[in-house]
Parts: sequence; C-alpha cells; structure tokens
Amino acid sequence: MGKLWGGRFSGVTDELMKRFNDSIGFDHRLFRSDIQGSAAYAAALAESGVITQQEAEMIRDGLDKVRLEFESESFEIQPGDEDIHTAVERRLSELVGPVAGKLHTGRSRNDQVATDTRLYLLSEISKLGLAVKQVQAAILTQSEHHIGVVMPGYTHLQQAQPLLFSHWLMSYFWKLERDNGRLADLKKRTSTLPLGSGALAGNPFGIDRASLAEKLGLAGITENSVDAVSDRDFLAEFLAWASILQVHLSGLAEDLIIWSSREFGFLQIDEAYATGSSLMPQKRNPDSLELVRGKTGRVVGHLFGLLMTLKGLPSSYNKDLQEDKEGLFDVIDSLSVELPVVEGVIRTLNVNVERMSASLDDSVLATDMADYLVRNGVPFRRSHELVGKAVKRSEQLGVSLRDLPLREYQHIDNAFGEDVNGIFDFRASLEARDVRGGTATASVREQFHRARECLEQT
Amino acid sequence: MGKLWGGRFSGVTDELMKRFNDSIGFDHRLFRSDIQGSAAYAAALAESGVITQQEAEMIRDGLDKVRLEFESESFEIQPGDEDIHTAVERRLSELVGPVAGKLHTGRSRNDQVATDTRLYLLSEISKLGLAVKQVQAAILTQSEHHIGVVMPGYTHLQQAQPLLFSHWLMSYFWKLERDNGRLADLKKRTSTLPLGSGALAGNPFGIDRASLAEKLGLAGITENSVDAVSDRDFLAEFLAWASILQVHLSGLAEDLIIWSSREFGFLQIDEAYATGSSLMPQKRNPDSLELVRGKTGRVVGHLFGLLMTLKGLPSSYNKDLQEDKEGLFDVIDSLSVELPVVEGVIRTLNVNVERMSASLDDSVLATDMADYLVRNGVPFRRSHELVGKAVKRSEQLGVSLRDLPLREYQHIDNAFGEDVNGIFDFRASLEARDVRGGTATASVREQFHRARECLEQT
Amino acid sequence: MGKLWGGRFSGVTDELMKRFNDSIGFDHRLFRSDIQGSAAYAAALAESGVITQQEAEMIRDGLDKVRLEFESESFEIQPGDEDIHTAVERRLSELVGPVAGKLHTGRSRNDQVATDTRLYLLSEISKLGLAVKQVQAAILTQSEHHIGVVMPGYTHLQQAQPLLFSHWLMSYFWKLERDNGRLADLKKRTSTLPLGSGALAGNPFGIDRASLAEKLGLAGITENSVDAVSDRDFLAEFLAWASILQVHLSGLAEDLIIWSSREFGFLQIDEAYATGSSLMPQKRNPDSLELVRGKTGRVVGHLFGLLMTLKGLPSSYNKDLQEDKEGLFDVIDSLSVELPVVEGVIRTLNVNVERMSASLDDSVLATDMADYLVRNGVPFRRSHELVGKAVKRSEQLGVSLRDLPLREYQHIDNAFGEDVNGIFDFRASLEARDVRGGTATASVREQFHRARECLEQT
Amino acid sequence: MGKLWGGRFSGVTDELMKRFNDSIGFDHRLFRSDIQGSAAYAAALAESGVITQQEAEMIRDGLDKVRLEFESESFEIQPGDEDIHTAVERRLSELVGPVAGKLHTGRSRNDQVATDTRLYLLSEISKLGLAVKQVQAAILTQSEHHIGVVMPGYTHLQQAQPLLFSHWLMSYFWKLERDNGRLADLKKRTSTLPLGSGALAGNPFGIDRASLAEKLGLAGITENSVDAVSDRDFLAEFLAWASILQVHLSGLAEDLIIWSSREFGFLQIDEAYATGSSLMPQKRNPDSLELVRGKTGRVVGHLFGLLMTLKGLPSSYNKDLQEDKEGLFDVIDSLSVELPVVEGVIRTLNVNVERMSASLDDSVLATDMADYLVRNGVPFRRSHELVGKAVKRSEQLGVSLRDLPLREYQHIDNAFGEDVNGIFDFRASLEARDVRGGTATASVREQFHRARECLEQT
Repeated sequence: MGKLWGGRFSGVTDELMKRFNDSIGFDHRLFRSDIQGSAAYAAALAESGVITQQEAEMIRDGLDKVRLEFESESFEIQPGDEDIHTAVERRLSELVGPVAGKLHTGRSRNDQVATDTRLYLLSEISKLGLAVKQVQAAILTQSEHHIGVVMPGYTHLQQAQPLLFSHWLMSYFWKLERDNGRLADLKKRTSTLPLGSGALAGNPFGIDRASLAEKLGLAGITENSVDAVSDRDFLAEFLAWASILQVHLSGLAEDLIIWSSREFGFLQIDEAYATGSSLMPQKRNPDSLELVRGKTGRVVGHLFGLLMTLKGLPSSYNKDLQEDKEGLFDVIDSLSVELPVVEGVIRTLNVNVERMSASLDDSVLATDMADYLVRNGVPFRRSHELVGKAVKRSEQLGVSLRDLPLREYQHIDNAFGEDVNGIFDFRASLEARDVRGGTATASVREQFHRARECLEQT
Repeated sequence: MGKLWGGRFSGVTDELMKRFNDSIGFDHRLFRSDIQGSAAYAAALAESGVITQQEAEMIRDGLDKVRLEFESESFEIQPGDEDIHTAVERRLSELVGPVAGKLHTGRSRNDQVATDTRLYLLSEISKLGLAVKQVQAAILTQSEHHIGVVMPGYTHLQQAQPLLFSHWLMSYFWKLERDNGRLADLKKRTSTLPLGSGALAGNPFGIDRASLAEKLGLAGITENSVDAVSDRDFLAEFLAWASILQVHLSGLAEDLIIWSSREFGFLQIDEAYATGSSLMPQKRNPDSLELVRGKTGRVVGHLFGLLMTLKGLPSSYNKDLQEDKEGLFDVIDSLSVELPVVEGVIRTLNVNVERMSASLDDSVLATDMADYLVRNGVPFRRSHELVGKAVKRSEQLGVSLRDLPLREYQHIDNAFGEDVNGIFDFRASLEARDVRGGTATASVREQFHRARECLEQT
Repeated sequence: MGKLWGGRFSGVTDELMKRFNDSIGFDHRLFRSDIQGSAAYAAALAESGVITQQEAEMIRDGLDKVRLEFESESFEIQPGDEDIHTAVERRLSELVGPVAGKLHTGRSRNDQVATDTRLYLLSEISKLGLAVKQVQAAILTQSEHHIGVVMPGYTHLQQAQPLLFSHWLMSYFWKLERDNGRLADLKKRTSTLPLGSGALAGNPFGIDRASLAEKLGLAGITENSVDAVSDRDFLAEFLAWASILQVHLSGLAEDLIIWSSREFGFLQIDEAYATGSSLMPQKRNPDSLELVRGKTGRVVGHLFGLLMTLKGLPSSYNKDLQEDKEGLFDVIDSLSVELPVVEGVIRTLNVNVERMSASLDDSVLATDMADYLVRNGVPFRRSHELVGKAVKRSEQLGVSLRDLPLREYQHIDNAFGEDVNGIFDFRASLEARDVRGGTATASVREQFHRARECLEQT
Repeated sequence: MGKLWGGRFSGVTDELMKRFNDSIGFDHRLFRSDIQGSAAYAAALAESGVITQQEAEMIRDGLDKVRLEFESESFEIQPGDEDIHTAVERRLSELVGPVAGKLHTGRSRNDQVATDTRLYLLSEISKLGLAVKQVQAAILTQSEHHIGVVMPGYTHLQQAQPLLFSHWLMSYFWKLERDNGRLADLKKRTSTLPLGSGALAGNPFGIDRASLAEKLGLAGITENSVDAVSDRDFLAEFLAWASILQVHLSGLAEDLIIWSSREFGFLQIDEAYATGSSLMPQKRNPDSLELVRGKTGRVVGHLFGLLMTLKGLPSSYNKDLQEDKEGLFDVIDSLSVELPVVEGVIRTLNVNVERMSASLDDSVLATDMADYLVRNGVPFRRSHELVGKAVKRSEQLGVSLRDLPLREYQHIDNAFGEDVNGIFDFRASLEARDVRGGTATASVREQFHRARECLEQT
C-alpha cells in the first residue's frame, strides 16, 4: 500500500521532504489511543449501517492484533508509514484485507489525531496526577515527622521570623494542591470528543457522536467541526499546568540547594540523589535538585513553542499543528521521572535539627518586640520605629538584641519595660501565630488534617 | 512621615535605587483594593480587640476620604510614597493622626499586596469576562444573520469542503466559550484570602480570617502563610488564560485579514476599523485586526516574563515578585480595548455573499464523490484513490470535475455511474454533514441554540 | 570501572535518579569533539611533563580506536556510562589500561563539556551556514530567471504598488544575508577555548592553553576559569540566531502559502514538497511550508528554555547547565532538514506569471497619480487627499480609476489634466522606483550583482 | 489638519479603534529622531530638485521649532495626532504652512518609522554601552582592591576549591565584555538606512540614499525596499543582547543575595541599596539585587513578545509591527536605571574578609591531595578514588581531612606519605592554578591588565 493520499499526485515526494513531513518517528507512541479510537469508530460505522457488523468485527480483531504487535514490540514500521495512523491502517489491511479500507470512511486524520491526542493525554494526566499526589504524601509524612523542629523563616533570604520546619515544608503541599485543582479542570476540557468532525465540515454518515464519546469514556463532544479539528487549547492548558508546577518545583529545589550548602547546613540530600565530581573527590552535589530547577526552562519553553506555533494560524487544520506533539511528549517524559525523584529526595531528606535552631538570630524576634510595645499601647507604626532603633543600637554595640541592656532600650523609649526580655523565646514567637494558616503547632496540625483530606480525595 | 521601615537604617537610599525600587508609578491603580482591604482589616483588628471600635471607625472614615481623593484625582503622591500601601497609610495618618499607625498591626506589605492584587484582578476578571461574552454575542448575531451563506472551507488554506459561513464564524464562539470556562476556574482560585499571613509566619493577634474573607467577598482563605505571601499562581493562570484567548483572536484576525484581501474578496472590514496610508491614497487597511494579531506576542511575552521571574525563587516573599504587576496591568489594559474592537469589527463586517459562493471550486466535492463510491460499495480507501485519479485527469485535460466526461470517469473505474454528477451540489454536500457539530444548516442552528444557552448563563 | 566519582559515596544511586541524571542518551553525539579535545589535552599533558610522550601516544591511539568504534557504530554503551565523557574514558581504559586514568589529570568535566560543545557547534555552524547560502543561491537563481514578472506588492495584505516578483523574492535574500552576518559574529565568540579551566579554579599542571587552542583550531582562550566553565552565551546567541532565521523563513512560508491558495493562484508548490489528504482526494497541501512556519515556535521555545534555565544561577558550574544540549541538538537537526527543504521549494516553484499581472488593480497606481499631481506643483499632502477622493468616487461609481471620466477628476480638482491617464502603466510605475534598493529592473539587477558578491565570499 | 490618510474614507473611525490604533502615547519619544530624519529628507528632496532650496530651509527651520517645543515640553499633542510622525507634520504645517505638505513626497511612514527607530536605538545603544562599561569599571576597581582575599569557590553551591574573591568577581567582567562585543556587532547592523524605500517599492524621486545615510551618520543603506520597511531584526538582536545581559546580571544578583544571607555572611549590600520591612523592624533586604534578578523575566519576555509578533507575518509592512516599540522602550528604561544601580551596589559592597576565609573547609583541598598523589605517580583516576575514600573515612570519624591520622591515609593506600599534610594550605592551592584564566594571584593580575585594555577601547 502506497500513500493514503497519492491518487491525484504524479510526482514523487522529495526524500528530505519525506523526513521533514513524517511524524511516525515520534507519534508512534499514540498507537494505543489510535487503535482504541479506530475500534470505536468501526463500531459506530456499523451502528449507522455504513459497514456490516461482521466487517466491524473483522476490523476490531485486526486492530487487536496490531495493538498486540505494538505491545510486544514486533510491529515493523515501513518506509511508507508517514504517521501512526497510516502505519496502523496499512498493517490492518495486511491482516484483514480490503475491509480495512472501509475504516476511514467519513473520517479524516484531522479528527483522528485530535481524538488520539486527547485520549493519550487523558491517560498520562492520570499518571502524572498520581505522581504529584505522591510528592504531596512525602511532604506530609516528612512534615508530620518533624513537627517539633524550629528554624528561621526567610524573606529576601534574610532571617525574618521563626518558623516550624514543617510549616515551611507544607507550603509546597499547598502549591501542589493548586496544581491538582488545575489538572482536574483541564482534564474536564480535554475529555471531549472531536471524532466525527471529518476534515473540517463534519461527518456525512450519520455517526452517533454522543455514543462514540461514551464508548471512549469521554465526558462530552465538540460543538463545531471547524474548531474541533484544530483546537489545541487542551495542550496549551496542559503545558501551562506543567509550567506552573515546574515553577513550584524549582522553588523547592532552590530552597533545598541553598540549605544543603555547607554554610547553611540545614539539611543534606541523600546520596541516592546526589552525585560526585570527576575532578574533586570530596564533592557530593545535589544534582537531582539542580536538574529539577533546570528543567523549568525546558517545560516553559515547550509551552511558549506551542503558543507561538498556534499564533496567527488560519482556522481549521494546518500542518503547523503537527508541531504540537514533541514538546508535549518531552514534558510528559520529563515529569514522569522528575516527580518520583522529587518524592524520593523529600522522603530521604536528612534534616539537621540542631543546626536549624542554632542558626536563629535574636533579630527574628524584632516583630515580637514591636508587638509587645503594641500590647503596651504604642501604635504599631511607632513601635516598629522604636524597635528599629534598638536593632541599630545593638549593631552599633555589637551585641545581640537579647544582650542589649534595658537602659539602652529605655533610652530609646520608656515604653520598653523590664518584661521586654519575655519576648526572647523563638518557640513562643511562632506559637503566637496561631491563626489559620499560621506557623503555630496547632495551626500546622490543622494543615495536616486538611492535607490528609485532600490526599484522600480521588 | 518618612519611610515605613527606616528605624534601623542610618544611611540614605541612593536616588537611582529609589527610582528602581519604587512601585507607586504603576501600583497606584490598586488604590481601591488597598483601601477596601485595609478597611476590612481595621474591622478585624477591632473584632479581635487590638483596637477599639471607635479607632476602627476613625480609620474607616479616613480611608473613605483617601479613596475619594483618589477617585476625584486630588490625591497627591509624595516623594516618600514608595508604593500604594505607603501612600495610603501616609495620607491616612495625615487625615486621622496617630491612630493610623495602628492599622498595620500584625500585617505586612507581603500579605497586603497579595490581597490587593487578588481583589483587583477579581474585579477586572468580571469586566473582561463580560467583554468576551459581548464578542460571542456579536459572533452569534452575525452567524444567525448569515445562516444561508455558503463558502469554501479551507484546510492548509486550500479549498477543502463547502461550509456555511455561519459554521466557520461559530467556530470562534466555541473557542471563546472555552476561554470562559478557564476564566471561571481561575476566578475560583483567585478568590482566596492571603491577609492574615503577616510577613510569612501568620498573624499573632487572633484575627478571624474566615470572617475577613467573607467581608471581602472572597470564597476561601489560604492554608499556609509561607505560601500565601508569595503565591502568584493566580497571575500566571490569568496570563495563560489571556495568552490562549489571544491565540484565538489572532486566528480570527488572520482569517479576516486574508479574506479581506482583494484576491479573496470575501468580506470587508468597516471603515470604522480600518485606516489608510500616509503615502498611498487608495489604501484601506485592516489595522484593527493586525493589531489584534500583533498583540498576541505582547501578552504571551508577559506570561513568560512572569514565569521566568518566578523560576528558582527561594520560598516566601522576595522582591522579584514586585515585577508581577506591570505585565498584568498591560494585559488588562490591552484586552480592555481590544475585545470591544473585535466585537465592533464583527458587528460591522461586510460579507460579500456572491464572491464567497462564486469562489467554490468543484474539487471541494471530491470527498462527496468518494462517498458516492462508498455508497456504491467501494471501500473508502479505494474510492479515495479513484477520485484522486479523476482529479488528476481533470487537471490534465484542463476541465473541472463537473465537466470531465463520464467515459473518463469510467475509464478510471466502472464504479462511476451516470448518477455521479448528482454530487455536484455544494449545498447538498454541506447539508449531508448533519452530525452534531457539523456544517449542515440544522446542525448549525443547533449550535445557535446551545450558544444562546451559554450566553444566558451568568 | 564504576562511577568516575564514587570514592566518597557509600550508598547507591536511586535507579530513577540515574535515569534523571544521565546524559549519555543525548550527548553521545559529542563523541567526535570529546575525543578531539581529549587527544589535544593528552598532548598538552605530555608537553608540560605530566605524562610521557609514550603515554600520550598510547592515549591518542586508544582514542582513535574509540572514535572508530563510534563511527562504525560498534561502540557499546554500558550501564555505568553516565555521559559521553565517562563512556569514552571507560572504553579508553579497557583498550589501553591504567594509563587511561592519567588523561583526566587537572581536567574536569566542567571545562571538558564546555570545550566539546563549542567544538561541536563550530562544526555544525559551518554546515548550517552553507545550507543558508544554498537557500540564498536558489532565491537568486529564481529571481534572475523571473526578472520580467510584474505582480502586486502588498502592505497589510492589501494591494499597494506594483513590484517585480524578483524584487519581492530578493527581499528574503537580504534577510538571510543578515543571518549570515550574525552567524559569523557568533562563530568568533564560540571559537574560544575553556579547556584548562578545571572545575572552576584553573589548571595546576602548567598546561599551555594558547597552544591547546591552536591545536584545536580555536581563535582564542577564555580569560577567567569561573566564567569559562559556565558560560553558555554562545548557545544563547546561536539559538537567537536560529530564532531570527526562523522568523524569516516563517514569513517566506506565509507569503507562499497565501499565494498558493486558489484565490491568489500566484504560484504552486511542486508536488515533491506537497502532500495530500487522507479524506479529501483533491488536496495538494503546502505542508512543507506549514512545517517551516510551525517550527518557528519550537526553535524560539528552545531559546526561551535556555535563557530561563540560565536565569538566576549561582556562578560557575551548576547541573542545571546539563539542560543546555537537547534543545540545541533539536534546533540543529530541525534546520539541517528544513533549510534544504526550503531551498528545494524555491528551486522548484511554479510561478503563474499571467495570474500575477492579471491580479493588479488600478488602485495600486494611486501613489503614481499623487506623484503626478506633485509634479504639477501640488504639495504631496494635498495631492494625496485629492487622489483619495478620486478613489472614493470611483468606488461609488463602481468603475476603476482608469475608467473614471476626466470630468470626475476635474470636478475634484483642476490639477488633474488630460494627461492623468498616462499614469496607468504598471511597469512604468515600478520602473520609476529606480533608487538603490527599489523595484525598478535596473535596481533589481544591481541587487543581483551585490548578491552574487555576497555568495562568493567564504 | 485631519488624518493624513482620510481622503478615500467616508466613515468615521470608531473611538475605541482610535485608542487601539494610536501610537502617539508611546512613540512621542522618537521626536528627535523623527525630526532629524525629516530634516535630512527635506535636504535630499531639494538636492534632487523635488522642492526648492528655499522650501527645504523653511521646512528645516520649522522642524527646528518643533524640536524645541518638544524639548521645552511645550509641544501639545492634538486629538488627530495618531503617531509622532503625524504630530510633527501637523505642527510643521501650522508653523510653515502648505510647504509642510511637500515633506512627505515619496516617503511613507513605513520607511520613516524604520529610520526613526534605528536612529533612536543607536543613540540609546551608546548610553547603555557606557553604562555597561561603568559596571565593568566598578568590578575591576573592587577586584583590584580586594586582590588578597581568599574564599571558597563553589560548584553546585557546594564548596569546591579555594578562589581569590577577585577572581570570582572578575568572572562577571568577562561576561559583560562579551555583551560589549555583541552590542558592537548589532550596532553595525542597526546603522543602516531604510529611508528611500517608500511604502515598499522604493522612491520615485531620484533621492540619493547614500548621501542621506551619510548625513544621518549611518554606515550603510538597505538593499531591498520590501525588506527594508519591515526588517525588525535589529530590535530582536538588541532584545536578545539585553536578555543575555540580564542573565549575567541575574547570576551576579543570585551570588550576592546568597552571600549576604546571615548564614553565609560573606558580604553586605550597602544601606543605600537595601530596604526594610513594613512589619519586621530588623530587616535589611537586598531589594536592589532581587529587582535586578526579577527584571530578567521582563526583558526576556519582551524579546519573546517581539519574536512572536514577527512570526508568520506576510512580507513588507503589516500593522503588527507597531507592537515593536513598547517592549523596546521598557527594556531601555529598565536598563538605564538598573545598570547604574548594579554599579553602585558593587562600588559600595562591604566584603567580610574574615568570614570568607574562615568558611573554607579542608575538603576543598581534596583535588590538591589527588594532585599530590598524581605527582607521586598514581594515575589521576585512581588518586581521585583514594582521596574519595579518605573523605569518606574522615566523615565517618567526624574529623577534618587535616586531622585524619596518617595511618588512616596509609590504610587506604601507601601512596600517601607523611608529606601529604603539605597540601593543607588554601593559598598554595589557588596559587598553583597559575594558568592563564586561573585563580592564582599572577593570573588574576594578568586579567586586570587585559581588562583595563578592554575598558580603554572606545
């Protein structure tokens, strides 16, 4: 069997053009979705009387064989197989004869590939969604395990206020939980059937599209055939999802990389996720995390690539759309390895509890000192200024806030009483922030509770 | 009043650094949200007993005055007003005295600006959502008006199959309807309260955050203070929404630009949306549409700018986040003008009905001819090949398919009967595609029905 | 041989981490550069007395064998080969024994991979530069061949002024010529040697880096080892080059796609670069050009990916940098096929000369009419307005400008004389634009001359 | 005066369309270039006899007045001024009467705006180039000043080998020097004259373009009018330059932010470039550097915006190109403040010399230990492994490498002799790396020398 579309052509395709045009090199991974879609379509053709039930069965049996050949890696790509759709139909016709030629009745590769890609993505979404949940589970477990650990919280990478380590770690749980929400939303838009849209004008053989959708497990059907064959919103939305997820992971990586430096020394990546240097024998580098951070560019780059490819295209199908797949596949492949690696890194994290608490500087209690003045009736804006002066004075004298003599405080303002030293308690500081979402132990335990509820949802 | 944070500083800020750091030049437009958030926060401080009800009222009255000054454009920015939050608090203190200094108790600009931006965006989302619906309404009206118009449908910008003009136009309705769905989804995630997260550790004054959220009309509250002060997902999601919307609009613009060329001549943009040339007196250019298409780069550029800025940041607040606003504002401003312009272009479109149908080439019925053979029992794949040969033969002879003699058809294959010329009916071709989502008149009317339902939903 | 860096590790690397970390799957294509660099480095080690000349020869012979294994595709990747550098050194040690262990003295994979990538890119740049020149040569040939063909020139896709087809086509020659200039510029910055920078601090074995550079054919050496191991500017610059080139090609594709529509009908892509439809037997789609246009997103996406990955990295080597290669390779692979395809499309273009000139509308002479008034003493701004009125009047009367009666012209303004109809000559219009860079035949021939000079430069 | 192009229009422009279309809101800053270009063009018109010398003088004098009005900020934008070109011509006609209407003879806004933008950018390039040099000068000065300071060098943010602080700092000098090279290259391509290309077909009035270019100080003239009016390569190239520069600055910012954390404590940003917190009185945040890092997204976003806007445009002028300016202006404005801020940060950097050297861990000498074994005849690959074992052993025993007993070393391998402790000298380690580009004091001084030469070049 030659080209699917060769009848009106006299010339031959240029050899480089063939390489340029063929997508079999990457779209073969759609084989399962392609066969699934074709089997459902054959059934629909039979239902609407275009082919007989017997013909539909022959096609279905043939498609099963083709799928088995792919699954057992015995399928052989032939030179004429320009894409997965051509390859499957070609092999089907070898297996079942001319009846294979009836399968494509009323169908176009335009609605076919749109359907295949959606089915494929839906199946990958499930796996990725699970992998995200496993990262969340590792975060929750580690957070629960380390509930007592106090550390400095940072803004601008400067010590800000005391935090529970678990509170910091849980912040990533909630980022990922938003990713889950977005994934659920895009899943519902992906779960829509384009099949039955033909090349662009619709199907003239009375196909029952609603029943087709049901058979394929899709939640809805597209409302306009011109739109259906070219809609790639679901891919853009998926890549935007992956991009935001990557931004989250890059932040986690950044925190962990900085904290595993010798100077911070807050934690250490397990050897299973570190590598050494070819030159420097002492090295133990957090390569896993650097790759996580680095892959953000790649994923966002693919999103940008897709949007740019889509920009300014005339409506319905244009071949530019063939460029939608390689970036998608690369993102799926990247995340499929990356998410379990992140999970492993978290699960095996070595936390240096002593170093964290030893690192706390008294100045992180400056806000508590201002709050103390507030409770003594000083308006906050003024109390902030007074404490600022105390900080400056302590730096001038080279002592910590705790060691700044009371007379120095009172020299700044009489609102400072002897009881000001009551604020020098890191744990008390954090326990005071017991609002919902705050770092107090009770608030964090409440987070655990809600987090577990999230994880228990399907 | 000097800087909010000057107490511990001895030196002066470099002049250029001040310009580099200040955001008042662009964030002043948050004034309404900032004041709304502060008023609610003052009430919450009173509820939890940090300030008295009377103080809360003084603050609220003062804030009202500040808002009126902004609204009447009599507010004067002072050199020390580094951002909208500072400006409002500074003016409040001028108006109500030292009690203004109590407003910021337990609050940080970190949770404040996150709250302001969400409130602001929610208000803009409503307006943009409405503007999209108005574009959809214009599409629906024009589609209903032109229901009888037949035109060539294109794939690869080559004539493919006959379409109703309304079917083509409605394809953009459904693209925008997906944009509506995405906007609703991101709205729900935007409608979450960060206030009460302080700088990063939470609020130590027993603020009732749930009640605060309710007062501000927000649907939920953030679950983790470290996350809450730095979460910009909602902005990324909004910019991704705008990017996909722009891709849709760029496609519409491309179609209309090509079709309003002299060579296509399918339609003409109304003069109200066209401009001329400074040199060439005859010109009447579709500038509106070119700008729509061109602005896609700008909007997507802002999405990428934000994602890049967010990439690899340490957790909680970093000043890099101040870069989140200008792109956002630019996108909102762009769309606020662009969407009504698109609506106007569609509403006033001059459609050249005759030119559209005259442009149809017989070859767009080739699929119908293949379908005819299918109905005569020829498997589709073979019928495709036979019709391909007929197309090639007709080109060789320089005649249209309609004028190719029957003997030529039968020379190709005897499956062609005399009745083959029954397929040369453009309208019959499109009416055959009467599946849901197809181009048949009945199917398109069904689209109108569903579309109206979509528009009637809030 | 186990890992290069395993001495200080007790644990094992996680299996997924290994997959995540390994780059051999894509960096094996650097084998030639890696071996070339190693051979030169072995010689340098011998020169500085670190190893003996005999040892250097053993290493060089071994490296030759390794290269031959790669070239004959008999090289077998082993599980421990995490990257091309490890693979080559592992195989070398199997072939020549312990002396292989001396090769890496004073060298790090950091300076090694930076060197390999530069050598590799330089070799690819030569090929791509040649491929661009061949596109230019095809443009020049076709332009010379069609020198007499007149067509409408467009701005805003509206007919503007008459052009020579060759003038339009040559516009792409000059875009590509700027690409050549940029390529030459980045080549000079790529041709710089990082080897001898070690991990980040420099080489302690007295290596003569200038002589190393010379041996490797590089024009210069890096000035700072910390910078040298992490500098990826040359890749960003290359990807920016490829991005601008793609923008050029996407514009060419857009022009040709629109012009090969049935409605324009100006030209046809040769069958060798077109494909058909699986459903519609008549189709002959310019897929080659759509892919060219579509690949722009992919290439620019890789540029963005790299810049994002580089953003905010601490100085010297970080593993994020391993993400620099796959996008690069993909761009090189894409362009390596795409450029010859573009060349082929141009070389085989079928130009419909009659259709082009028949398509010219009189209104494209409106500027000439205004120029006519200018020559009669009317200031241009006023003459523009008068001709604008004539255009409007002709549209109202439904006649072409040529057929608008003289009295109508004179009713607008008496500056129109009987000789106004002298301007209705498309060729005269274009020949009047005989300035350098203009569309007059003489000016275009001058372009040919300059173009040939450009092509003749190395 | 109404619209420049209104003659053929009957209808009125929609009000929102006017806002959408007008560019005067941002392109007014081109006034100087626009007037400069117009003055030169008037002279060229006179030279070719289109206008008289006297008319040219009237126009030139008028233009001078317009320029003075802009410079004194007394120029009043009128509602009809859609862009700077219209505004200038409108005002000119008010000042000098009908002769103003002769200025635009043979010119189009297409070649005019392309010329204006190039002239404008060339002037900005000079200023930015100078600002970069001033950053380099600050780096050089600080490096020379701190020549003796030893610190840990990092790869993967893990201590790697000892470095001179000056060597680290100079690494940024060379990055910026590459930026200088790229700027010089793009300057030469920007310095090309499009004027005389008309709308797209060239100038029919015998304008001497070479002389025009000379008058405007441009190095060359464009070779093809169709290309000339739409070529925006020079902007893409400039934005790519700015993007790579930003990546460099973002890395510098990242280093300095991490190093100014309390945990590293290597240095402190001067108060002039730091800010405080509205809530936490102790804070002293490196906001300047975070903004530098954050602005990378914005700049790169503009590059991508432009490339996306350009992608797939038909040739010659399309209105999409009007989108080329705002991003450009924003990048210029950003860098104009950012570069001096970076210079200031470096110039005023407080380096904590003791903390840097105290932070050095013995393990950074592991490579020197391996080199020691190499000098004792052990092949490097084996010596690496042996030292790795020593590192592991020292960690097991909880002692530093220096304190690991000799018997432990010799238990690993007899190649370790008593003299192994000779390697425990941080300065000796770095002085050994005395290759060109290495961290040895002599090598760094050589860098100073070359750097000064670079700065002295114009």
